Amino acid sequence: MDFTPRDAFASPRFAQVATFMRLPQSRDLEAIDTAILGIPFDGGTSYRPGTRFGPREIRNQSSLLRPYNPAVKALPFVTRRVADYGDVDVAPVNIEKTYALIEGEVARILAAHVLPISVGGDHSISLPVLRAVAKRHGPVALIHIDAHCDTWDQYFGGKYFHGTMFRRAVEEGLIDPRRTIHIGIRGSLYAESDFDFQKEHGMEVLPIGDVKERGIPYVAERLKRLKRGKAYVSFDIDAVDPAYAPGTGTPEVGGLTSHEAVSLVRLLAGLTTVGFDLVEVSPPYDGPGQITALLAANLIYEYLCTLPKRAEGNPKKKQRVS
Amino acid sequence: MDFTPRDAFASPRFAQVATFMRLPQSRDLEAIDTAILGIPFDGGTSYRPGTRFGPREIRNQSSLLRPYNPAVKALPFVTRRVADYGDVDVAPVNIEKTYALIEGEVARILAAHVLPISVGGDHSISLPVLRAVAKRHGPVALIHIDAHCDTWDQYFGGKYFHGTMFRRAVEEGLIDPRRTIHIGIRGSLYAESDFDFQKEHGMEVLPIGDVKERGIPYVAERLKRLKRGKAYVSFDIDAVDPAYAPGTGTPEVGGLTSHEAVSLVRLLAGLTTVGFDLVEVSPPYDGPGQITALLAANLIYEYLCTLPKRAEGNPKKKQRVS
Amino acid sequence: MDFTPRDAFASPRFAQVATFMRLPQSRDLEAIDTAILGIPFDGGTSYRPGTRFGPREIRNQSSLLRPYNPAVKALPFVTRRVADYGDVDVAPVNIEKTYALIEGEVARILAAHVLPISVGGDHSISLPVLRAVAKRHGPVALIHIDAHCDTWDQYFGGKYFHGTMFRRAVEEGLIDPRRTIHIGIRGSLYAESDFDFQKEHGMEVLPIGDVKERGIPYVAERLKRLKRGKAYVSFDIDAVDPAYAPGTGTPEVGGLTSHEAVSLVRLLAGLTTVGFDLVEVSPPYDGPGQITALLAANLIYEYLCTLPKRAEGNPKKKQRVS
Amino acid sequence: MDFTPRDAFASPRFAQVATFMRLPQSRDLEAIDTAILGIPFDGGTSYRPGTRFGPREIRNQSSLLRPYNPAVKALPFVTRRVADYGDVDVAPVNIEKTYALIEGEVARILAAHVLPISVGGDHSISLPVLRAVAKRHGPVALIHIDAHCDTWDQYFGGKYFHGTMFRRAVEEGLIDPRRTIHIGIRGSLYAESDFDFQKEHGMEVLPIGDVKERGIPYVAERLKRLKRGKAYVSFDIDAVDPAYAPGTGTPEVGGLTSHEAVSLVRLLAGLTTVGFDLVEVSPPYDGPGQITALLAANLIYEYLCTLPKRAEGNPKKKQRVS
Amino acid sequence: MDFTPRDAFASPRFAQVATFMRLPQSRDLEAIDTAILGIPFDGGTSYRPGTRFGPREIRNQSSLLRPYNPAVKALPFVTRRVADYGDVDVAPVNIEKTYALIEGEVARILAAHVLPISVGGDHSISLPVLRAVAKRHGPVALIHIDAHCDTWDQYFGGKYFHGTMFRRAVEEGLIDPRRTIHIGIRGSLYAESDFDFQKEHGMEVLPIGDVKERGIPYVAERLKRLKRGKAYVSFDIDAVDPAYAPGTGTPEVGGLTSHEAVSLVRLLAGLTTVGFDLVEVSPPYDGPGQITALLAANLIYEYLCTLPKRAEGNPKKKQRVS
Amino acid sequence: MDFTPRDAFASPRFAQVATFMRLPQSRDLEAIDTAILGIPFDGGTSYRPGTRFGPREIRNQSSLLRPYNPAVKALPFVTRRVADYGDVDVAPVNIEKTYALIEGEVARILAAHVLPISVGGDHSISLPVLRAVAKRHGPVALIHIDAHCDTWDQYFGGKYFHGTMFRRAVEEGLIDPRRTIHIGIRGSLYAESDFDFQKEHGMEVLPIGDVKERGIPYVAERLKRLKRGKAYVSFDIDAVDPAYAPGTGTPEVGGLTSHEAVSLVRLLAGLTTVGFDLVEVSPPYDGPGQITALLAANLIYEYLCTLPKRAEGNPKKKQRVS
Repeated sequence: MDFTPRDAFASPRFAQVATFMRLPQSRDLEAIDTAILGIPFDGGTSYRPGTRFGPREIRNQSSLLRPYNPAVKALPFVTRRVADYGDVDVAPVNIEKTYALIEGEVARILAAHVLPISVGGDHSISLPVLRAVAKRHGPVALIHIDAHCDTWDQYFGGKYFHGTMFRRAVEEGLIDPRRTIHIGIRGSLYAESDFDFQKEHGMEVLPIGDVKERGIPYVAERLKRLKRGKAYVSFDIDAVDPAYAPGTGTPEVGGLTSHEAVSLVRLLAGLTTVGFDLVEVSPPYDGPGQITALLAANLIYEYLCTLPKRAEGNPKKKQRVS
Repeated sequence: MDFTPRDAFASPRFAQVATFMRLPQSRDLEAIDTAILGIPFDGGTSYRPGTRFGPREIRNQSSLLRPYNPAVKALPFVTRRVADYGDVDVAPVNIEKTYALIEGEVARILAAHVLPISVGGDHSISLPVLRAVAKRHGPVALIHIDAHCDTWDQYFGGKYFHGTMFRRAVEEGLIDPRRTIHIGIRGSLYAESDFDFQKEHGMEVLPIGDVKERGIPYVAERLKRLKRGKAYVSFDIDAVDPAYAPGTGTPEVGGLTSHEAVSLVRLLAGLTTVGFDLVEVSPPYDGPGQITALLAANLIYEYLCTLPKRAEGNPKKKQRVS
Repeated sequence: MDFTPRDAFASPRFAQVATFMRLPQSRDLEAIDTAILGIPFDGGTSYRPGTRFGPREIRNQSSLLRPYNPAVKALPFVTRRVADYGDVDVAPVNIEKTYALIEGEVARILAAHVLPISVGGDHSISLPVLRAVAKRHGPVALIHIDAHCDTWDQYFGGKYFHGTMFRRAVEEGLIDPRRTIHIGIRGSLYAESDFDFQKEHGMEVLPIGDVKERGIPYVAERLKRLKRGKAYVSFDIDAVDPAYAPGTGTPEVGGLTSHEAVSLVRLLAGLTTVGFDLVEVSPPYDGPGQITALLAANLIYEYLCTLPKRAEGNPKKKQRVS
Repeated sequence: MDFTPRDAFASPRFAQVATFMRLPQSRDLEAIDTAILGIPFDGGTSYRPGTRFGPREIRNQSSLLRPYNPAVKALPFVTRRVADYGDVDVAPVNIEKTYALIEGEVARILAAHVLPISVGGDHSISLPVLRAVAKRHGPVALIHIDAHCDTWDQYFGGKYFHGTMFRRAVEEGLIDPRRTIHIGIRGSLYAESDFDFQKEHGMEVLPIGDVKERGIPYVAERLKRLKRGKAYVSFDIDAVDPAYAPGTGTPEVGGLTSHEAVSLVRLLAGLTTVGFDLVEVSPPYDGPGQITALLAANLIYEYLCTLPKRAEGNPKKKQRVS
Repeated sequence: MDFTPRDAFASPRFAQVATFMRLPQSRDLEAIDTAILGIPFDGGTSYRPGTRFGPREIRNQSSLLRPYNPAVKALPFVTRRVADYGDVDVAPVNIEKTYALIEGEVARILAAHVLPISVGGDHSISLPVLRAVAKRHGPVALIHIDAHCDTWDQYFGGKYFHGTMFRRAVEEGLIDPRRTIHIGIRGSLYAESDFDFQKEHGMEVLPIGDVKERGIPYVAERLKRLKRGKAYVSFDIDAVDPAYAPGTGTPEVGGLTSHEAVSLVRLLAGLTTVGFDLVEVSPPYDGPGQITALLAANLIYEYLCTLPKRAEGNPKKKQRVS
Repeated sequence: MDFTPRDAFASPRFAQVATFMRLPQSRDLEAIDTAILGIPFDGGTSYRPGTRFGPREIRNQSSLLRPYNPAVKALPFVTRRVADYGDVDVAPVNIEKTYALIEGEVARILAAHVLPISVGGDHSISLPVLRAVAKRHGPVALIHIDAHCDTWDQYFGGKYFHGTMFRRAVEEGLIDPRRTIHIGIRGSLYAESDFDFQKEHGMEVLPIGDVKERGIPYVAERLKRLKRGKAYVSFDIDAVDPAYAPGTGTPEVGGLTSHEAVSLVRLLAGLTTVGFDLVEVSPPYDGPGQITALLAANLIYEYLCTLPKRAEGNPKKKQRVS
């Protein structure tokens, strides 16, 4: 099977069933090394819902992507064998059941030495993904690009919603808090104590001001200490300013530009990432241009371009991770 | 306190905090006989979410309503003492907890002999409302205007979502199935057996064809048998055609016109209704004119106009119901 | 000069500066017998503004119209010499000044024996148009298609807004109330007394129920008594249901369908109409399809098709009116 | 392979890659008897473009459909083996090349005794489909539901655009004009002579007035003469009123309601149809509710429900047509 | 009474009647020290209307705000007692009457030593606010963040519209022109002489180029001279680029980013501001994400965070201003 | 005839038929020296169509422009005699025929020593414009601001679409590739070889990174070598980031801000430009604020401000170019 996008000069980009980046759909884990899977769950949302339609719309908008990335001289669909893995069939009104379904599916993917790229859905889906990742790789570093740290304790008495995952992940030993960095943090909070958890556990917080004033090179500097060991990357689209990403559930003004967002993802090249998620795209709140989904598709693509080449001959054996 | 809408010639209709029909906000159950309460929950939704913003948008659009209904010669805010009761503070990611909160609040309202008008939110909220209603009034007749019967058995293994309420209500003895009528039913189903429950329990189903071809007088005829005894009314806005109500979660083509919808609600005059809900308005799927929320506001208003006059002097004692 | 629309097979309908029905722009009152003029004023609006952009959007959407109306076998641009007269340059923040400007411009048009078709703007513009009309023709009959009678007395202490014109018109002797008919009336009001003025002055009110239940032939019957004498026609787009006309300032549910609206305008054939206005199209509240402006354009076109043929040779002398 | 939609109680309707009616994708013509294929071409459009995104959006909105149609007691996915066949890879800027691609693909489908259901795209795509159909079946009857007859002669000197197909089809002997009926015709035209072609060739025209005033039974009566012989059905969504179908290229006011549109399609049961197309859905002009695409999906589904059961055992041999 | 926002972990942010920042509504001027009042007037608008719906939508979007601002370590609802004061009941079609109503209401607020934060509405409302402010505080400094200086002389012969306020304010002695600074000025003008008034009266103009090229520190520098004495702040949202603030009446390209806008407001800390307004948010021109209203809500919040702590015990006596 | 925009204090900016910058319409080539002409063709589009409505919407949004540009101290309507020339009547479904029509019209304009400013439409229109330009001026330098180089070879076997123009232009000798600079290039491509053509022919490519990191002064530096000789300028709005320009056909994230776009156009002052086009604005994909069309209007205006003054007395003879 050929894991390259349909040829846009023979099949128009608006044609055919929309898959991620116009790639073939496949669940043949022997054939691929990278799976883009949708997780259309928004049952963990505290404000605007709609991210359940995120995977479909990101598939739509990803149709514009082409196979070569000149900025970083990458051919991600040559370097990797990538497929649209389809979606996890979540249980829309039950977060615990959904968590089990997600963890199971991601575990299956990881067991086959395939790298999972998860497309939300709301941010609550990162926790079951991390459970599967940690089971395979042990506690990992976390690179978290977001307006919010998502380390609150609970919501209406429950443990799970899209603002508690990374506290849970620390409590469950899924991520190493001292190898965790939150990038782009901003917006109003409930209290100064909202940062207590981060401080106690040694999580690094890079507020948006640091990104804006010190620039991408400063962030590159801060990421250096994560070069060794495995890292998981979680990108909440609300890290980006509402002008560039209006279609999201809890927008915060004063965020990243699209250029900064792309630049941040490019910094991941050279790190050993074992998974990536892009979450919180809510199409009903995007305008007719669907620029949020388009940006999300590009960020996933840029992430693909940071991945090392799969080993020839034996695609699964020799690649560094997954 | 004066329970009439602000005067539109002294306070513009677009001014001030938006309340239902520009009525005062109040939770003083001694002072009122009718409470319009929002229930902004969409955690029971199987397709398009967004009804959590229903109460706010219906408040906005209800600003256009005026105090006199010439079609039925009613002055509902003179006949009744109505207030915007505010919303139930639902638990967004937990349907069971939300059910308890709703039932508790509606029970409080009913205990004070106040008539509850519930504004959803998705249709799943009708079940806890009926629990409170049945506790007070015993099993009631149900007049259910909807595209769907909502008598499915379960959803992803769970008992509660916006398609199972009326099966649960029968099972729990909240409604009398033989005094239940589903009006406006249409759209594709899973199997012929989807009607088994209705048949077994003697629920009457009026498909849309009957409304379209035999007309409103035929429906009036069918409702006659409910004249005696107490009835609860549940109006799912998707009973109305998507042209008139695009802003909803599971639209079905071929539905009611707005004129038919208004006419149906007017048929309730003369019945002894003990509660009403208007559900499934999803503002993100409405257009800039927000015509779905506007229609919903009008249907609530028309329902108010069907209510009997509260007894003077002792407003709570002598009114027929609640 | 050729007063026919551009040929759609030589000049695409989306091309060129948008004029009403792709007609030439002209203020040469000697050359034409019918002027379509925009009156982009929304300073008399009590709820949603935006009708100031009505003329421009109706121009845009009128591009779809073609020269032959098969339903009534009319060739309006052959029968009449019609031009896009441009807009009245209203004074956006001053209603009195605007009234003077409108009256002056319409008087100029009428003085040249040209029939004025006014495109709003909000409904307040009908008053100065009627002032000019009455100066030329004396008090006229009024055929008023609308959800509201617009005979309120004042608004925030002022005499002019889009709900008082027809009371003013009676007071000023511009229309003959006994030869006035309000068609399509519906929606909530302030009090039963809102109809006092109509009753006192003998204005006929046809509520929407009469149109819906008795049909267009009944309206035709009611219009018969206006056959003799001159009549002015005012069409407020909110007579039409919000499903068909969401882009308007004070929508009322339960209104006309587009088919009914077109049929009503066709009833004007045979009457001696001396002016027509189409008001209250508010583009910001229309959806991307701009169906309200499209319907408005069609209603103006249908009105054109009801007009008698101009006399050949001497186009101004022999035509019955204007 | 199982040709039934995914189970909505195990896989949410908003999940997974969007296919027509959540059916499997397949080009295995041996396995199926009915192919729904997208034809995303809008290069023949004279006004609003955007129908190239029609197939994708109709796929999205068709997710709401369920397997049983209670109104006509049909189980179309049991009766037939239906698949999402994918799209024809049209040549976006070349209509002749696109015509060849469409004709080739449809011919392949027909050669395998599979019934083609084509989803546009603009209406120009009906011509190459008919070319393939006529090659296999000879000249067929045409049931054409549309606001326009589409029998113009040329456009900017060219033979092909979305208003000339049925003149070409007559000229090329693809359809039998005396067994052709145009239903729902309305809107302004260029001249009285626009009907000359229909008259000369004996095509029947049912204007919208006949549908509105005489009703669906009258149309049923008119269709009776087509009972014998094979018929092709072409449904242009602009037959429906813009209130119900705003997302289209050349909307005409005063059209069908959704209830009428569904009823018209149901009349096809009992006829021997050898192909169906649904065209002119333009998503950029639909609102956020995408009600036009939803209606289109329902009309295709209703058509499926009119089809006779495939013969058991030898699915291809014994079925009446294709 | 507790003047803190509802607890978002007990009452969802989308629930309840929408008030500014989910604060209690109150007109008890003894209880509060800061009043956020809506002024829903757009009768002074020269281009796109719709700002009359600004206060309601800013209330909606302010629901996302939380009580702690980590960027400046402020707890504005602890530092201050803030309430949603409701709206001024403007006279929609009469600017002079509206001016009197606004001035009266703001005077009442100021008389009670309460700081007024006015939420427009169009910019014309700043003049009556300044009249009240100047009556209490004498001529004040003006910090005006806007694309336009709003010092034109008249509009269609009238003195008042949303482009003349600050000329009027100088003429009436309400502001000290030598202590006035216009920040963010850009866009095309009528003539070079449009700056004459500013030059004559010694108003400082900081064009957008200065902000973009010299940065926020330069603006901070320029503001230093206003440290002494009282200042009024007027923020027109069109100072911000249309990408960040599309929902406004007279957008100008090339404006502030949201990050720059927030940074500018933070510069106000340390100044003695006696009032603030945020104007020109027009929701009908915002997209579904309503990012303009969201930004406006944040700017008001950031302003609150610049205010000094009210004196404990005697909240009104010891605070520096108002 | 007076070639200045209507006076916005006597004729509101939203009034009258919308022309470019509210200028008079004229095809009197003797009277003007600069023609803004619309080219509403989108038949060369590979992804989202809709740019056929670009000229009309840019006309609408250009209504906000005023006659004086303070940033560069220019009075473009005094310096030049500019008119809205109307549109080329393109052949919507035939690119070759359209090319002939465009070339003919532009040639006529150039023959009269009038400078053509072409407003698309999709980018494919630049080729016939360049054919006319080169016929008059010989091969010109090209300043091309875009996300894409548009030097692909063919599309579905055809030579013309909106991605091949500048290869064709080189092949046909219309532009001098060594005096060509592509500015703002970014986004994914098909292969590294996509740059071969540029390299072979010595075209300069300035990727977006150079603009973002080295700034506008660097671009100014790179443009210096084009000071001598004639240059044509082509501005594809997708050079700008989707946040600022969502309404376009093939958006690419990470683009120019509006401030950068304006700054780039200002660099053209001092060059000898013989034509300018602004292409790829697709209104259906813009939001309700239509910020893309607004930005486009501003960029055209800024270009006008870079033009040298026409010679007094004999306006055509002495001006440097055209």
